[in-house]
Order: sequence, then structure tokens, then C-alpha cells
Amino acid sequence: MKRININGPRLYASIEELGAIGAYTDKQTGLVGVCRLALSDEDRQARDLVRSWMLELGLSVDIDTIGNIYARREGTSPELAPVLVGSHTDSVPTGGRFDGALGVLGALEIIRTLNEHKIETRRPIVVCDFTDEEGCRFGTDMLGSAVATGRLALDHACALTDKDGICVGDELRRIGYRGEMNVNSLRPHAYVECHVEQGPTLIREGFDIGIVTKVQAIAWYALSFTGRAAHAGATPTAYRADAGLAAARINVKLREMVESGIYGEMRATMGVIRPEPDMVNVIPGRVLATMDLRNPDDDAM
Amino acid sequence: MKRININGPRLYASIEELGAIGAYTDKQTGLVGVCRLALSDEDRQARDLVRSWMLELGLSVDIDTIGNIYARREGTSPELAPVLVGSHTDSVPTGGRFDGALGVLGALEIIRTLNEHKIETRRPIVVCDFTDEEGCRFGTDMLGSAVATGRLALDHACALTDKDGICVGDELRRIGYRGEMNVNSLRPHAYVECHVEQGPTLIREGFDIGIVTKVQAIAWYALSFTGRAAHAGATPTAYRADAGLAAARINVKLREMVESGIYGEMRATMGVIRPEPDMVNVIPGRVLATMDLRNPDDDAM
Repeated sequence: MKRININGPRLYASIEELGAIGAYTDKQTGLVGVCRLALSDEDRQARDLVRSWMLELGLSVDIDTIGNIYARREGTSPELAPVLVGSHTDSVPTGGRFDGALGVLGALEIIRTLNEHKIETRRPIVVCDFTDEEGCRFGTDMLGSAVATGRLALDHACALTDKDGICVGDELRRIGYRGEMNVNSLRPHAYVECHVEQGPTLIREGFDIGIVTKVQAIAWYALSFTGRAAHAGATPTAYRADAGLAAARINVKLREMVESGIYGEMRATMGVIRPEPDMVNVIPGRVLATMDLRNPDDDAM
Repeated sequence: MKRININGPRLYASIEELGAIGAYTDKQTGLVGVCRLALSDEDRQARDLVRSWMLELGLSVDIDTIGNIYARREGTSPELAPVLVGSHTDSVPTGGRFDGALGVLGALEIIRTLNEHKIETRRPIVVCDFTDEEGCRFGTDMLGSAVATGRLALDHACALTDKDGICVGDELRRIGYRGEMNVNSLRPHAYVECHVEQGPTLIREGFDIGIVTKVQAIAWYALSFTGRAAHAGATPTAYRADAGLAAARINVKLREMVESGIYGEMRATMGVIRPEPDMVNVIPGRVLATMDLRNPDDDAM
């Protein structure tokens, strides 16, 4: 079998070109990031660019009613279920160039490579760009794929609103990406997604690439600790109800539970900690905190 | 010896009248509080009212160059050092009616009672109202008494500025309370201050009054915990440097140290806890926290 390589510099150049849309410079690090919130003008520009590349490659492009973009390269057996390859091009408010983009543009680079080598595949290949993977704007992440797989109803998804009360359906129409294709019409044979790692494991362990073998269950909790705000000097320790200390104990306990091994590969994070009144000489009377739990094993979760 | 009682309702009425100056209603509790920041217009109104009461009682009123008010009732031995009685009438931005006011108005009630009973004292009694006890506006608390006792230089105190760059000296002149009396001219025989308790001990233990036997040493620390901000899902526990967890461990450890008894009557409070970036799915990379330590025993501190 012939060894085929993709064109790395070309792929990188396309990531750079897409990354210029919605680009901003991070003040702290000086690094360039991207802000392409779902269904914003920047999202439209990114979609237009990706779609133009899809069309250049001779793919037939369809857009479904939740705005997912599908670009099909026909197989020698068109009746077979296609292999779906892709990701998303929307971003969080302060995202990187690679998150999502690598999956979509990597898929296009595969198509380019196949085209250049005149390789036909038995199954069709469909490059996809899913709508609103991040969920930052309308509050529900993986929105486009959730609708496409039937986990969310289309009407429900289109009625979701952002903080200004603007709904998904209206924004899809405004940016010209409310398509005609039925959201449930694609039944892929397999789905492949290339994604930049968001953790430190690969670089720390010296690997170039990792394969996802498990998906983590995820649960978010908002924790409210209620104690009694009181004077830090005048209140004896025995009379205190320190909400900050209560939150601290839960944080420490969480790590102990994780390290106990009883909960498998549980990961626990208290990311938000907001004491009230948040003053040096007042015992916190209330704390709002969050707990992020992740576990690849549902039973251990 | 004849038993003499003060007139409680009259004292209470004067506290109410003073409390109306700078009064506001707390939105959460519906309770009425006071905002009389040092050397503000409200502070001037409060000083004017207190001074008018001093003059009505036949006291001779002097104001020193840092704005402390001294009202003297002569003794049968005028050459003796006076007994100083009083407190302050400025408040924190959201203060109560009693803090400080009870000490000044209680002293005036004592004078009223002595006058009514035609009682002469051997030593002069001086009722005092010290400038800027709270320190909220110009950053240094017990300002007037610190200057009067020589702990702070007058020039230094007068040059202190608030957040708008307005200095103590100018504000003293503006509100008409930069007096002529030398700040170091009063050498009291004793000082008595009646103050509302700011803790829960008296009511919990069923006492009407407590006598201060020790003053607590106090130390404030700003703690900065530096870890590594990272993705709550993608970062294995072993690779984490969670600044929030570090702060939590210190908070828990502080309480353990207090409860160990090794540090006497130490009180420890972590009042401010501010993680960055303060997001549900990001391990805190940095935490700013404060530590308030109090101890009546210097050696145990």
C-alpha cells in the first residue's frame, strides 16, 4: 500500500487564514486568539470561507435547518452510509485557532490529498461543520450535533435565546445559514474528529497523537454555602459559621475523594469561589462555588 | 452612697436623633443604618449636633488641629489631669447607629446626669469625639486619636488623601473643624469608652455589659497563591496545580491551628478569596486571599 502524506504546511496555512477571522490579541500573553461566537458575523465569515474551500474541492455542500454544513465527496458505492469527518468553527469568546478548526480543516486537507492522488473511496466521505459546538452564546453546547442526532428537538434549539433575547432561528436566517436539509437525514457509517488536545498529557508524556477511548461523563453543580457574616475580630471561633471555611473543606474533601481511587478516574474542580461580603475583616456569610465533576466511568460518577 | 441612674430613654432618643444624620435603609434587611464617612458633609452635621449638645450642657468646647472635639466639665481640682470619656461619630459606609455614637452620647448623658444631681467631681471630665476612627476614607484608622497620642505626626495625617485625592487637612478646613488646640495638649488621667459589642458573645452568654481586659494584636496578610490555570476536564489530577485548592488547604489548616490551642485565643479569618479566572470549568491558576489574625497574647501571635 502506497504511503500518502497530507500537506502539513498547506493545512497550517488554512488554519492561519481561518484564524484571522475574529482574531484578537490577548493582553496578558500577547498571543493571538479568536472570538467567533456561534451565529455571529464572525461565524458567518468563517462559514463562508470554509464553504468556499468545500466548493473549490468539488464537494456538494448541503446545509440543514439547524445550520450544520455537510460537504460530500462521493464514494464508489454511493448507497453506503458515509464516513463523517469534521468538527466546528465557532469558538468561545477567547478561543484558540485550533479548537474545532483543526477538525474541519484537517478533513478538507484529507479531501485535498485524496483528490491529488486521485484516490476513490468505497464509502462517501462527508466533511461536516457543526453549528454552535461551544454553547457560550445560547447556553446549550453541541447544539448542531445534538439536533442532528435527535437528542434535541429542532424547534427547541431554534427558540434558544442569547443574553439579548436574540434566538437561534432568527440568527441562522440573518447570517444565511438556515438550510433546507432535514436535520435527521444523515446516518453516518462512522464519525472521525481530529481535535487539538485541551490538556497537558500528550506533551508531558511525549506523544504526537492520542486516540479517545472514553468520553467523560460531566456534571456541573452550583454550591451555595450559607453561614453567618460576622466581625473577624469580635467573634469567638466557637460562635462562627464561616461559609468560606465550609467551601474550603468541601474543596479539600473533593481532592481526597479523587485521590482515594474509589471513584475511578474522577476529576473534580472547584473553579468558582465567591465569598460574601469578600472583605478582609468579615467572616464570609455566604459563598457561591461551583463543582465540575468528570468521570469516564458512569458507575463511578 | 446615693444610687444614681442615667436617663436611658433620653440617651436612646439622642442616639436616634444622631442616627438620622446620614441614615439609609439596607435593601436586604430593611434595617436603617448610617453612612457618615469622616469629614464628609454628614460628619459635619453630626459634629454640629454633638457640639450643640455639649454647649447646651455648659461645657467648654475645644477643637484641636486634627479635628478632635473636647468638651470639658471642670472639676473641683482643675489642676488634675482630666478623665477622658468618649468615642467617635464617623461611621463606615454601611454602619450602625450605635458604633461610636454610644460612646460620645453616653458620655454626654453622664454629664447631664451629673448636672441634674448637682454632683461635682474632683477631676475635670472631658467628653471627646475623635476624628476618623474608622479609616474607611483616608486609609488610616483611629486617625484623630493616633495624632493626639503622638503615634502619628499631624502633617502626615493632614496629607492623607481619599480616592479622589482630597486630603484630610483641606476637608477639615472645608467642614470647619480644623481647630486651634494643640493636638498633644491633653494628658488624661484615665480614658473610658462605652462601645456597642461587635460580636455575639454578650447576648449569647446572657451578659448586659462586658469590660475589655485585653486588646487584640491584629495582623492582616494578602496571600497570593499561584498555580496553573487548566481545563477542568482535560487535565489529569496528577498534572494539576490548583491555586484554589491550595488556598482552601490554608483556610482549613488555619482553623486547625486555632483549635489546637497552641496559639492561645488566636482568631483567624480568610475573608477575601478571589480565584482567577473564576470559571466553572477552569482550574484556578491564581487566588488572591486575605488572612486576618487576632490574638490578645502578643507572644502567641
